[in-house]
Amino acid sequence: LVLREELNMENGEICFRPIGVINTPHTDLSKMPIQPVYAGGIRGTVTVYTEYTEGLKDLDGFSHIYLLYWFHQVKDMKLTVTPYLDDSERGVFATRAPGRPNPIGLSLVKVLSIEKNVIYIEDVDMLDGTPLLDIKPFAPRFESREQVRSGWLDTVDERTARIRGRRQDDKE
Amino acid sequence: LVLREELNMENGEICFRPIGVINTPHTDLSKMPIQPVYAGGIRGTVTVYTEYTEGLKDLDGFSHIYLLYWFHQVKDMKLTVTPYLDDSERGVFATRAPGRPNPIGLSLVKVLSIEKNVIYIEDVDMLDGTPLLDIKPFAPRFESREQVRSGWLDTVDERTARIRGRRQDDKE
Repeated sequence: LVLREELNMENGEICFRPIGVINTPHTDLSKMPIQPVYAGGIRGTVTVYTEYTEGLKDLDGFSHIYLLYWFHQVKDMKLTVTPYLDDSERGVFATRAPGRPNPIGLSLVKVLSIEKNVIYIEDVDMLDGTPLLDIKPFAPRFESREQVRSGWLDTVDERTARIRGRRQDDKE
Repeated sequence: LVLREELNMENGEICFRPIGVINTPHTDLSKMPIQPVYAGGIRGTVTVYTEYTEGLKDLDGFSHIYLLYWFHQVKDMKLTVTPYLDDSERGVFATRAPGRPNPIGLSLVKVLSIEKNVIYIEDVDMLDGTPLLDIKPFAPRFESREQVRSGWLDTVDERTARIRGRRQDDKE
């Protein structure tokens, strides 16, 4: 049993420490794909600090994992935003925009292999050097749902989504 | 444009503030369902602090949302755990166990309705009074994957998963 440092809830704050770092080829915020699903084939690594390596046991059985991370380059937030996939202003909680009150990112990525404390991943949509907060296994048993409505996202056609998702120009 | 308070990265800590609170009928940690999918029909509410109400615009178009929250009752962590659905010890990152290095919870819940700053939800698997960190829309367009392997979770049969997921006794 490892005792975590007492969580700091002074001033109403909840504080976490990065458990590792995500490395990707994306160094320019304005050129990154906007979701893993639009980052087809782009590879990266998750390096977990060695004191947490033991926690990766059995993770190699999972083809996909959720990464929770800190949008460390985002400095301000807006309560309404115009998403990349859309032309209308939406409430920030109805989008995946990084400039949210608590800038925590969530991406579902594919696991290629795990070697000691390094996870090789595919479909990366985060910035190089992103601080990692948590890893969770993806299980359709927990996360698949039927009769899903996706609000404004349902109105974006697949071609536009794919083009804008890769930040290509769809005006051509 | 709203400027967020400067993020505190002193001492390597990343600090967040709750944006609201989750209320559920679950007041006993040992009796809670272990995943939303095993909390069939149990209802709760997400009350977002009124300064963030504007961010909920358009969220009512989504049938399901991810809630990110703080496991506020969890005081220690283990790098390996025996999950409720299993009898073997697994790396904590290959499980959804709350006692993780950064105790951030992720649950996919069903939206019943939204009234001003209150979201009425179904399939709740979190403790009453849980501090809310973020809300993200669920979009199969982003999160559905084919050819998924779920490691040790694939070896748990559905009957056992359902019984243990509801924390009923499967020894009868």
